[in-house]
Amino acid sequence: MRAYRLNGATAPLARVEEADPRPGPGELLIDLKAATLNYRDTIVREARYGGEQRADLIPLSDGAGIVAAVGEGVPQERIGERVAIGFMPRWIEGPFTAAKQAEALGGGFVDGVLAERIVVPAGGVARLPDDWSFVEGAAYPCAGVTAWNCLFGGRGIRAGDTVLVEGTGGVSTFALQLARAAGARVIVTSSSDDKLAQARKLGAEIGINYRDTPDWGARAAQIAGGEGVDHVVEVGGSGTINQALQAVRPGGEVSLVGVLTGFGGDVNTGAILMKAINVRGVYVGSVSDLSAALRSGIRPVIDEVFPFERADEAFERLRSGQHRGKVAIQIAA
Amino acid sequence: MRAYRLNGATAPLARVEEADPRPGPGELLIDLKAATLNYRDTIVREARYGGEQRADLIPLSDGAGIVAAVGEGVPQERIGERVAIGFMPRWIEGPFTAAKQAEALGGGFVDGVLAERIVVPAGGVARLPDDWSFVEGAAYPCAGVTAWNCLFGGRGIRAGDTVLVEGTGGVSTFALQLARAAGARVIVTSSSDDKLAQARKLGAEIGINYRDTPDWGARAAQIAGGEGVDHVVEVGGSGTINQALQAVRPGGEVSLVGVLTGFGGDVNTGAILMKAINVRGVYVGSVSDLSAALRSGIRPVIDEVFPFERADEAFERLRSGQHRGKVAIQIAA
Amino acid sequence: MRAYRLNGATAPLARVEEADPRPGPGELLIDLKAATLNYRDTIVREARYGGEQRADLIPLSDGAGIVAAVGEGVPQERIGERVAIGFMPRWIEGPFTAAKQAEALGGGFVDGVLAERIVVPAGGVARLPDDWSFVEGAAYPCAGVTAWNCLFGGRGIRAGDTVLVEGTGGVSTFALQLARAAGARVIVTSSSDDKLAQARKLGAEIGINYRDTPDWGARAAQIAGGEGVDHVVEVGGSGTINQALQAVRPGGEVSLVGVLTGFGGDVNTGAILMKAINVRGVYVGSVSDLSAALRSGIRPVIDEVFPFERADEAFERLRSGQHRGKVAIQIAA
Amino acid sequence: MRAYRLNGATAPLARVEEADPRPGPGELLIDLKAATLNYRDTIVREARYGGEQRADLIPLSDGAGIVAAVGEGVPQERIGERVAIGFMPRWIEGPFTAAKQAEALGGGFVDGVLAERIVVPAGGVARLPDDWSFVEGAAYPCAGVTAWNCLFGGRGIRAGDTVLVEGTGGVSTFALQLARAAGARVIVTSSSDDKLAQARKLGAEIGINYRDTPDWGARAAQIAGGEGVDHVVEVGGSGTINQALQAVRPGGEVSLVGVLTGFGGDVNTGAILMKAINVRGVYVGSVSDLSAALRSGIRPVIDEVFPFERADEAFERLRSGQHRGKVAIQIAA
Repeated sequence: MRAYRLNGATAPLARVEEADPRPGPGELLIDLKAATLNYRDTIVREARYGGEQRADLIPLSDGAGIVAAVGEGVPQERIGERVAIGFMPRWIEGPFTAAKQAEALGGGFVDGVLAERIVVPAGGVARLPDDWSFVEGAAYPCAGVTAWNCLFGGRGIRAGDTVLVEGTGGVSTFALQLARAAGARVIVTSSSDDKLAQARKLGAEIGINYRDTPDWGARAAQIAGGEGVDHVVEVGGSGTINQALQAVRPGGEVSLVGVLTGFGGDVNTGAILMKAINVRGVYVGSVSDLSAALRSGIRPVIDEVFPFERADEAFERLRSGQHRGKVAIQIAA
Repeated sequence: MRAYRLNGATAPLARVEEADPRPGPGELLIDLKAATLNYRDTIVREARYGGEQRADLIPLSDGAGIVAAVGEGVPQERIGERVAIGFMPRWIEGPFTAAKQAEALGGGFVDGVLAERIVVPAGGVARLPDDWSFVEGAAYPCAGVTAWNCLFGGRGIRAGDTVLVEGTGGVSTFALQLARAAGARVIVTSSSDDKLAQARKLGAEIGINYRDTPDWGARAAQIAGGEGVDHVVEVGGSGTINQALQAVRPGGEVSLVGVLTGFGGDVNTGAILMKAINVRGVYVGSVSDLSAALRSGIRPVIDEVFPFERADEAFERLRSGQHRGKVAIQIAA
Repeated sequence: MRAYRLNGATAPLARVEEADPRPGPGELLIDLKAATLNYRDTIVREARYGGEQRADLIPLSDGAGIVAAVGEGVPQERIGERVAIGFMPRWIEGPFTAAKQAEALGGGFVDGVLAERIVVPAGGVARLPDDWSFVEGAAYPCAGVTAWNCLFGGRGIRAGDTVLVEGTGGVSTFALQLARAAGARVIVTSSSDDKLAQARKLGAEIGINYRDTPDWGARAAQIAGGEGVDHVVEVGGSGTINQALQAVRPGGEVSLVGVLTGFGGDVNTGAILMKAINVRGVYVGSVSDLSAALRSGIRPVIDEVFPFERADEAFERLRSGQHRGKVAIQIAA
Repeated sequence: MRAYRLNGATAPLARVEEADPRPGPGELLIDLKAATLNYRDTIVREARYGGEQRADLIPLSDGAGIVAAVGEGVPQERIGERVAIGFMPRWIEGPFTAAKQAEALGGGFVDGVLAERIVVPAGGVARLPDDWSFVEGAAYPCAGVTAWNCLFGGRGIRAGDTVLVEGTGGVSTFALQLARAAGARVIVTSSSDDKLAQARKLGAEIGINYRDTPDWGARAAQIAGGEGVDHVVEVGGSGTINQALQAVRPGGEVSLVGVLTGFGGDVNTGAILMKAINVRGVYVGSVSDLSAALRSGIRPVIDEVFPFERADEAFERLRSGQHRGKVAIQIAA
């Protein structure tokens, strides 16, 4: 099969030709059709994701394709299933553990999906809706599931709640769409008026340009009315969390998913305490969450689809920060 | 003020002229503008609701109006607020108790809202959205809150879930609308193809005529796919619950709200156990639930609005079973 | 290996000599050391459990032993682990489904643990505390996990809550012990003053003899104080559920686990609704629940341990209704 | 009545003689019998609690006494009730809000309980168990309720869970006792071996001296086994939270209650995210939580009881850091 492997932080990805993997007992062989990129992939490529990492990893976590063969103990009828692959294919359901996390694709020592084939556990995939493309399916495993988990994995938002979504990247765009689908009002922040206009087209009630409004947390609380917003999807990490704590109402929830502005930093723990805020760390989600997220029927926003041959350009596109929605790679027709 | 009082099961309501009530400390005087009817009101009128009941009660639980005066300790600024009144105005928030239930309006010994004025606790009302009519506001306290509590008060439905709603009455219509607003697929049952067509217009994916399809529970499970529907809004009581238990997936939830087919009866407890189903009794909800439900922004379906003078006709309309949505009475302009 | 197989409802179990099972990929071979009996086993033996059933099934669901060999893909280090086996060894974690339920041991077409060896999935077992006997471990998979799931799998009891436990059988005794360990007050019912005395020794605050006190539900509510008990462990099924609904406070929870008095029957659905009670069907639990239950450290009450050769006598003992705690069979030393 | 009022950070409290307060409609007059001190009271005295504050406030939030008179609308039968007073007597139940928080006793502009009498809302008190002293009752409103809320207000601990409790102050000692009562294993940290020995007497399984073991978070995780402790009661604020994040297992919960080491500071948000930890801010709790906490039956640990005349010495004792359990003041016999 053809595949790409990491080749240092700056050099182009190494294009390789390898033997196809073979499904062991309880496993599936997937013919990959599409993959999408996440911010994590750029950090992994620069070997900055933390922990040890194999230098020549096959990158990317998010893929979709067709079941091409099955290992011992898996029913033959599964061949032909159109599926998206779980970000952590061994976190099928149940609570999060370090052991499940260790199997995240395209990081550490686990090869990812930028290849023509991959082997995963039989329970590690979720069926695609019949009329979805593989690119659409490949958009969900990391960003879509993370957004889903933020909104529905904790206390769950309710119709009429107000949700503050930071930014317009992959997780944030899904969060905006899913929150709207669940009947919530959505406030979005960005440094770009263009991106805010785009967000309003997707259903955001109001956009706040955080360059013009440095105290955007207080502004969001004011827009929400009452004592503040019910839920914040916090993708900025410690650089923005204090604004999130300002925005949220007493007793509200902040989902902490992002690392865009770095790990660690000064956090207003007094606000967490005095406002009795729930700060919930979200690390993607299970294959069961992936199935549930796909059932929402929300079609992802796709920015641009690059052919397999131009995979490096897909990374460029993501790094440019100009993308809107998911950057994708078509692996096969 | 003018008001109506019960006058036996069959005679017209007694129209009376009485002194206005006066707000005590911590209370509000409400100028009532609109009321709506629920099935409960017909049972109360026939003295069949269970428990002792005052014979000449002011009927109806669901009303909306304007704060006209405040008692000691309540800020003057509240005068002029446009509000819906809680079904149990002393169940402001927190857990359900018998003490809170005892204060339900328009039943037992507690006068209701078919009058020009009523006194309620300051915490017993929820603000109406500015652009809503009083009739719309008066549609929510019993049926709207019950539907809200079914869908969001227990485990909470999630976008993409499948909800089975029995019938097309007040609670059921709200449940259909709220479930759709929350991104769920909805299956509706009725004995009338016309009503099913109406339900589809409100967003139901599929209607099942239970006359044509006596095993409608199994049919709903089949339509839902997977192992059955995620949630049933069970309004029929014990006459239909066994079909609901058939429809719901293992581990799913049945909200039990109705008494249409009587209290008690044969229930398949074996199915509850073997399918690990959660059967959740729902008795309306708190004033806090009323506020949350109004925040959903879902406009109620209003069947017909009768003037105060023709209140008896509103009861007739409800009893006819021909109504679609809420039957209302305009108390004042 | 030696094993027993069903041989009709009344004849002694058939003692057989068979080839050892072999662990496939992802599986464990367990050398069984002990098994215990549940009421379900007597119904299965009489072919009254519902659904189709293999006539010559190896009976019993609850066993404990030592990992003797591992299949492909399972680390060799697991050999030697002392484990209890999950009632449904493929319900490792996550939500309950019919597919997981279909794998319950010792019922339908799935052989059970009354044998010297069994093969189960690698995730289908929970480690025993080091100082526990195999008999103690074998007491948990059905009755202990069911009790655990009742008390901790739903809303969860809190220190100071009042729990009503019906009867003194396997699930009930575990529920009494676990509720006490969690700081709850416990009320127990029985028809035997001796058994009530025994229950008080295990920490029950009060015993109610339901023969002397036919309205034991109301009596339990009165003892609890406030508006009734917080939680009922309902093992009697539809014959007793109306008393349970009487005992529980408005907004309280009834865990429905039992079938002792039959499937189906008249249920006061009006009480479920008017008191907003949560009736939660509990069908045992997952292997993850088994692990959690074992972590409680609560040692099970063992009635009598029969040697493998006298397995029929263990069934007799259970049928006698004279047992207190679990009836066990020692399969090997 | 006699009372104390604040008199600057260092001067003795001002002893005053004032008119008794009078209960308005819906209110109770309480004859205070005992009060206890919290760390918050020392910060309030030094005017460092944040926000504006009345200079001559009656200090202390935690009191217990007897209902001496009732205002309009409150049943006469309540006179004579032995009660503890809620920390925020208008947070009776339901969600936390800023409005409820603003009524916390003994801070801001709200007089506290270091007086012979106080007026509170009729719903703002919880009944004491009959055989409890007023000092015991006065120990609960802040520290006892906070500990209760940490352990039972979020996901709730379960028998067999492992809880890490930081320190041996008021909240921590309650947390230790309540976690033990609920069947959890408890690990305690302190800088004093004496205090650790004391904690073990109260049921802690293991004490860690954080002076000797600077990486006490990792040590606690190791003691817990598995992937770490299930729950941390984090009283140290941002100075210790990174150790707490180290101790807790992936998917575990950290209750953030303390400000001992200051508001704000560097927090490892990367750990919150990558381990999917739930950090839950806890600000005391409602009167309903107070009732529930008292129902646990756990008798508080009382350090020393000072007579009303020697109130300043009670503050000294707390500031000394030598106390074990609650420092109390007997206001009347």
